[in-house]
Amino acid sequence: MSRGPLPGFRDFYPEQLAERAYITGVWRDIARRFAFVEYDGPPLETLELYTRKSGEEIVGQLYNFTDKGDREVALRPEMTPTLARMVAAKANALRKPVRWFSIPQLFRYERQQKGRLREHFQLNVDILGEPGVTADAELLAVAIEIMRAYGLGPKDVRARVSDRRLLNALLTSAGVKADQLGPVYAAIDKLGREPLEVTREKWLKATGDEDVAIRLEQTILQKDFGKLRATPEMGADVHTAMEEFGKYLELLDALGVREWVDFDLSIVRGLAYYTGTVFELFDASGEFRAICGGGRYDDLLDAIGGVSMPALGFGMGDVVIGELLRARGLMRRNEIGPDYWIASDSEKLLSKVMQVASRVRAAGKSAEYSLRLQTLSRQMKTASSAGAREVIIVAADEAVAVKNLADGSEKRLTLNELIASL
Amino acid sequence: MSRGPLPGFRDFYPEQLAERAYITGVWRDIARRFAFVEYDGPPLETLELYTRKSGEEIVGQLYNFTDKGDREVALRPEMTPTLARMVAAKANALRKPVRWFSIPQLFRYERQQKGRLREHFQLNVDILGEPGVTADAELLAVAIEIMRAYGLGPKDVRARVSDRRLLNALLTSAGVKADQLGPVYAAIDKLGREPLEVTREKWLKATGDEDVAIRLEQTILQKDFGKLRATPEMGADVHTAMEEFGKYLELLDALGVREWVDFDLSIVRGLAYYTGTVFELFDASGEFRAICGGGRYDDLLDAIGGVSMPALGFGMGDVVIGELLRARGLMRRNEIGPDYWIASDSEKLLSKVMQVASRVRAAGKSAEYSLRLQTLSRQMKTASSAGAREVIIVAADEAVAVKNLADGSEKRLTLNELIASL
Repeated sequence: MSRGPLPGFRDFYPEQLAERAYITGVWRDIARRFAFVEYDGPPLETLELYTRKSGEEIVGQLYNFTDKGDREVALRPEMTPTLARMVAAKANALRKPVRWFSIPQLFRYERQQKGRLREHFQLNVDILGEPGVTADAELLAVAIEIMRAYGLGPKDVRARVSDRRLLNALLTSAGVKADQLGPVYAAIDKLGREPLEVTREKWLKATGDEDVAIRLEQTILQKDFGKLRATPEMGADVHTAMEEFGKYLELLDALGVREWVDFDLSIVRGLAYYTGTVFELFDASGEFRAICGGGRYDDLLDAIGGVSMPALGFGMGDVVIGELLRARGLMRRNEIGPDYWIASDSEKLLSKVMQVASRVRAAGKSAEYSLRLQTLSRQMKTASSAGAREVIIVAADEAVAVKNLADGSEKRLTLNELIASL
Repeated sequence: MSRGPLPGFRDFYPEQLAERAYITGVWRDIARRFAFVEYDGPPLETLELYTRKSGEEIVGQLYNFTDKGDREVALRPEMTPTLARMVAAKANALRKPVRWFSIPQLFRYERQQKGRLREHFQLNVDILGEPGVTADAELLAVAIEIMRAYGLGPKDVRARVSDRRLLNALLTSAGVKADQLGPVYAAIDKLGREPLEVTREKWLKATGDEDVAIRLEQTILQKDFGKLRATPEMGADVHTAMEEFGKYLELLDALGVREWVDFDLSIVRGLAYYTGTVFELFDASGEFRAICGGGRYDDLLDAIGGVSMPALGFGMGDVVIGELLRARGLMRRNEIGPDYWIASDSEKLLSKVMQVASRVRAAGKSAEYSLRLQTLSRQMKTASSAGAREVIIVAADEAVAVKNLADGSEKRLTLNELIASL
């Protein structure tokens, strides 16, 4: 008989739950400050909702099955299809822009990766119904302000940003033909994960033109947006895309997050998915997988939900964040111990102990007491091991003693004075 | 292409999520005041974890399937098996009594009941490792204080309590033999749902003795614990169980919840499960299904987790609570609109609007602004329809106007004064 969870699933004992509550609490708080409102959908959806977005290939990674009503269903591997479905169902009734967030638990059956989790919690933040670049700046600022709220700074975490429209215009301007874009993108996506010579060969092979491949490399590796923008003679399409991207960076400056942001055309992400700005957040030291990724996906709602609406969003999982915060000594957890432990030195005072506990609780504080008879010194030890902050010792009369377990200080007052002070 | 969720599942749009957050927020707050700490387990477990507790019959009601690793798994239909597994895995390391709560989403495939939900959220509160009746009183007090926190009173909600040990002793004292207990219990469980004559016939048939059946009826229908206790000559077992139950009621009084509680021996609940106190909460008018049910189940942890430990707990779902609160006009929801809308009368001030939004957000308040160019009067309308509480109108200099959308009042101050006042 196994006492553990299924492989790839986590038990959240109180200590772990308190960390998860800290991580998700920051998510909720920052999303709220940016005036995003929370929604949720079912963890189980029709299989078709996911294949419609990702094709039949996705099925191999899903927890999918046939339910007792002969429906093909799957545990949600991501939230965007549910979002698209829900927004499409009420598209006309919703105030635009839709500014929604959600914190679903997501599930993937990944057979090959031993030790990798098969579930995680993921913050999803999306803006729907707004094509302008101000929305793109707002969205990235949410992700960055979450990092700041965890105590991380621009030296710890970098946001790498690009724009699919700018990249397309630059590639075309460099001489890449439309039918060469696929393999060129695929090679860009592998930059940093394979030697530059390999990428160069791929670019040369894809374009069949050494000059094009060289211009391509000079463009893609240029991390200074100002210098790239100053390159002469790149055509009207590049000019327009540059203007728009320049505006994006200015707006990020207005929102106070520009210093976290690096221009990086090698950020590609899902090819069939994104249509404009794209970004990823990484820890600056490069130790961990991406913290978060997102961008603009103007065509997806139509494809999944049948409603045409510009859209952008990002996802941020709890696992990488947790690893990063622990590595930096920044993981915090909600307090677990009670505010007050109620004690007495006589069995006869049990109902009084319980009355005091009730009054403390009615005042909004947490209170615990020994459910079985214990000596006062034993009660003090129990209170301490429970993590109680103060012990209230009741007596037969109205006097109580309040002992602070951290500094050992003690004060005496009446019960009414104590309750009034809570 | 369906735009709705699977039958029996709910979409939580922001309005519904805000109600769910209100319901679960009260659960968390009261559980915390009683010094319970939150845990969680996986929504997917081995099928065997559930059949071990409930037998193979349960499988027909589960979302169960074979995963891609050939494991028989099921979406959790209840939390107790997970709790038993988790506690058993760390039984020696955990401080006793374990005071834990959880708010899992639970899943049942109920084929026959059209319109019934197939998922719900359920508060689970449990105390493990404590055999004494003080724990029983603490547990019921949590459920009742939750009702009070929703604005409900003892005229709205009644807690019906019984004790399996007391009932057993009374039945034996009334002359019911051990092998007659099963059918007698089954008939008690149906009381109130079928005519009393039918129950009488069942009791008579089960015991084969008219005198026994009459004593049985007088006992079970006696709602006055004091009178029942005063009945002479019921034997030592009844006396002991009466003492214990009387103590339970006294402790409920000490915890300030006695006036919510009715003694009711017809509360039976899961026969194979409960071993001591049992209780259910109902709305006093009898309109709705039970709000909550629980009790002591001292044998279950051994049966499921292989660790012997006294235990008690209750479950409370979000659906009946929601129906009751709506019917009584007591449903509340968290505020959805932003604290501040930032506006201006010039396109040139967009970065200033964004800077002010950032400062308001950094001060912990929520702020939104128009992502596209709008006239000031249009911005005011948008702010109002978004539910913003105040609009901050920025100008080219340091002056800002703050307009309260509820009462129309307006004040003028500098930006720094405003931020300092947040």
